[in-house]
Amino acid sequence: MARIRAINSDLGSSTIADLLPRLRARQVSAEAVVQACLARIEAREGEIKAWAFIDAELALRQARNLDQSTVRGPLHGIPIAVKDIFDTFDMPTCNGSVIHAERRPDADAPVVAMLREAGAVILGKTVTTEFAYFHPGPTVNPHDASRTPGGSSSGSAAAVAAGMAPVGLGSQTAASVIRPASFCGVVGYKSRLGCFPMSGVSPLARSLDSFGWMTRSVEDAGIVFAALSGLDIDYDIALEVPPNVGVCRTPVWESADGDMQALLETTAERLAAAGAGVVDLALPPWFERLVDAQKTVMAFETAQALADLRRRHGGQLSRRLMQLLDEGIATDYRDYRGALALAEQGRIELQSLAHDFDALIAPSACGEAPVGLEATGDPIFSRMWTLLGLPCISLPMGLGSNGMPLGLQLIGPMHDEEALFRAAGWVEKAVE
Amino acid sequence: MARIRAINSDLGSSTIADLLPRLRARQVSAEAVVQACLARIEAREGEIKAWAFIDAELALRQARNLDQSTVRGPLHGIPIAVKDIFDTFDMPTCNGSVIHAERRPDADAPVVAMLREAGAVILGKTVTTEFAYFHPGPTVNPHDASRTPGGSSSGSAAAVAAGMAPVGLGSQTAASVIRPASFCGVVGYKSRLGCFPMSGVSPLARSLDSFGWMTRSVEDAGIVFAALSGLDIDYDIALEVPPNVGVCRTPVWESADGDMQALLETTAERLAAAGAGVVDLALPPWFERLVDAQKTVMAFETAQALADLRRRHGGQLSRRLMQLLDEGIATDYRDYRGALALAEQGRIELQSLAHDFDALIAPSACGEAPVGLEATGDPIFSRMWTLLGLPCISLPMGLGSNGMPLGLQLIGPMHDEEALFRAAGWVEKAVE
Repeated sequence: MARIRAINSDLGSSTIADLLPRLRARQVSAEAVVQACLARIEAREGEIKAWAFIDAELALRQARNLDQSTVRGPLHGIPIAVKDIFDTFDMPTCNGSVIHAERRPDADAPVVAMLREAGAVILGKTVTTEFAYFHPGPTVNPHDASRTPGGSSSGSAAAVAAGMAPVGLGSQTAASVIRPASFCGVVGYKSRLGCFPMSGVSPLARSLDSFGWMTRSVEDAGIVFAALSGLDIDYDIALEVPPNVGVCRTPVWESADGDMQALLETTAERLAAAGAGVVDLALPPWFERLVDAQKTVMAFETAQALADLRRRHGGQLSRRLMQLLDEGIATDYRDYRGALALAEQGRIELQSLAHDFDALIAPSACGEAPVGLEATGDPIFSRMWTLLGLPCISLPMGLGSNGMPLGLQLIGPMHDEEALFRAAGWVEKAVE
Repeated sequence: MARIRAINSDLGSSTIADLLPRLRARQVSAEAVVQACLARIEAREGEIKAWAFIDAELALRQARNLDQSTVRGPLHGIPIAVKDIFDTFDMPTCNGSVIHAERRPDADAPVVAMLREAGAVILGKTVTTEFAYFHPGPTVNPHDASRTPGGSSSGSAAAVAAGMAPVGLGSQTAASVIRPASFCGVVGYKSRLGCFPMSGVSPLARSLDSFGWMTRSVEDAGIVFAALSGLDIDYDIALEVPPNVGVCRTPVWESADGDMQALLETTAERLAAAGAGVVDLALPPWFERLVDAQKTVMAFETAQALADLRRRHGGQLSRRLMQLLDEGIATDYRDYRGALALAEQGRIELQSLAHDFDALIAPSACGEAPVGLEATGDPIFSRMWTLLGLPCISLPMGLGSNGMPLGLQLIGPMHDEEALFRAAGWVEKAVE
């Protein structure tokens, strides 16, 4: 990486909401913002290892082009860290695997092209686990280098947490946005299944793979959503009207440690005290089957999605990934189809159960980021929500016994992102 | 194309069901089958123009390798024509566009890899409309060269109809499998939305794009399904037990011409006379909104999927495709989301309405293949079914006033492909 001149390192750790008006008014240049990010990367990357590829000149060139053109897009000049499973026409995309070490796609993934069209600067590519499954990359947790940042969107979460970029792209098949967001103490948004195109993105399971991103605030997450969908979120309404929140301990409550269980309980009390409607939502017992259903779908579909890799490059896949593929191949189509049908039933039942809530609230992970870099933590608290396909947002809500971040996730209705973002904005303010 | 020696041209127009036992018993070699297909291609390709790429030596090499190895896969030695939007690691994939004239992917699309793993020979790539939308390629209808073969899976339908391959792969976003199957007089199977991975396949609309294939019989379509899913269909049961069939004139009945309307009515009578349970199924009037909902979803999602193409190669896209992208960009996210929600409601209502039927029966297209090659025909009779995501199979059921084929489609339950294949097998026999 070329040596970077640090102009104003505060710019790098600003929120999108802070930066945008200054960029639009030309009070700050896109180049200065990118340089601030690069300075921060230069300072911390040696320790954190969040990046799979970064070319300072390429990022600066994009910024200068924006500085020289009219302001058109809603993300004009905002630098974005892109998980290295999203194809980029001008940067390598290696999917966290030696098999693709030399891979240079000839096109942007649609979501990357959409972000460029919105005026974003593609800052560089961030570390992913191998093909976004469990085998980790080198990234460490910015809050404690002996701990995992979570996965699979490890580099994006760490980069945002370390002030290297205001937003980092991720994807979630089990818990790959919500869990690293929780472990790294940033906001993580997992969009509704199918909400954005996942073509040009290395696939695992088509009925689960969902687009998402990490930011430093709920408002920032909403700005990215608005830029991609065209739907603006009106937060002013949100701050006036307390939301109705359903407290959902989920069928895997026992997997949460004492820190996490206490955080959910005290948060529920705080939200109620602040004026929110807070009611426990107990799911029907059969919902616990959705956790295994997610595993069945993930194994079956991933084995199909990676059929060519297994066939022609199987020897270069990790043991963990090969195990998943073997499991998928051994899965009966009827069991897979049954798991999908169960998910549909779950969506329908939850829609009527959660009808009166703006959002549900549940743990984002079992607890703090575990010590060790050989694994990325347990995805169990997101498997069910990912299978149900609902939009989720994880907020940093406290610290655990070791001083590490803990997140809680809000889960929104299938077709009302506004309700989720408003509830999350209200909750964020309420616990400030 | 290299000059091909015709060994036995009958092999080329055999069904998979005929070929498989002979291939497995080594009574016929994969090489002989491929040579028979190549001979047929050599004889008719000059007129039909079904192929975007074919390398006789490459196809024969695959066949010889299979002849020299043990029989393992369920499609051992079966040649498959692959629509040129499915990536192949050893052949170009040009997506029917000059933009991708030089494109050579470095991997197989998952479904192609799965078929190779099952023992299939990838015979070559067939003509697609531009990026599987409306702008046609050069293919003509094998039954009348002045008429369209339908689109977007034009080459695969024509190739199967002309005896060039026993099976051709396609994809359907509006009607791109069912309509060309109807126009060309072959069986067309459109799988359940999400049933197979669509990565490595040029995308249009993620909530619609479905995998499918054309064959010469229902049994053959089921053999391919079984090879890909692992689910065997027991037709013996089917032939003993007449199905319950719901006759569905659909909300666009008036778009069917006299030939097609008469075909559905007489078929319903014939099936009832043969012992099937045949009952009219009238859909609630609001279902007509699903046709426009499909258009909304298709425009909105295609504009996203092709964001990079539009951004960097917009000048090389056809006017028709640019119109769709502009329409998609102008579509409000809330209208798009509403269209998806409507589809979900339609799925739920239809599930209870159609509960007692093994399959519904409806027109596959408005009528015969229209004269002219500048358009591929109206997709209106499949838009709703594609949006609902249900598996469909089109059967050649008669001839129109001009002696061209007419198809009817059977629509099956979301999670019971067996019911659909059995009903289709029964219907095929009943109208022989």
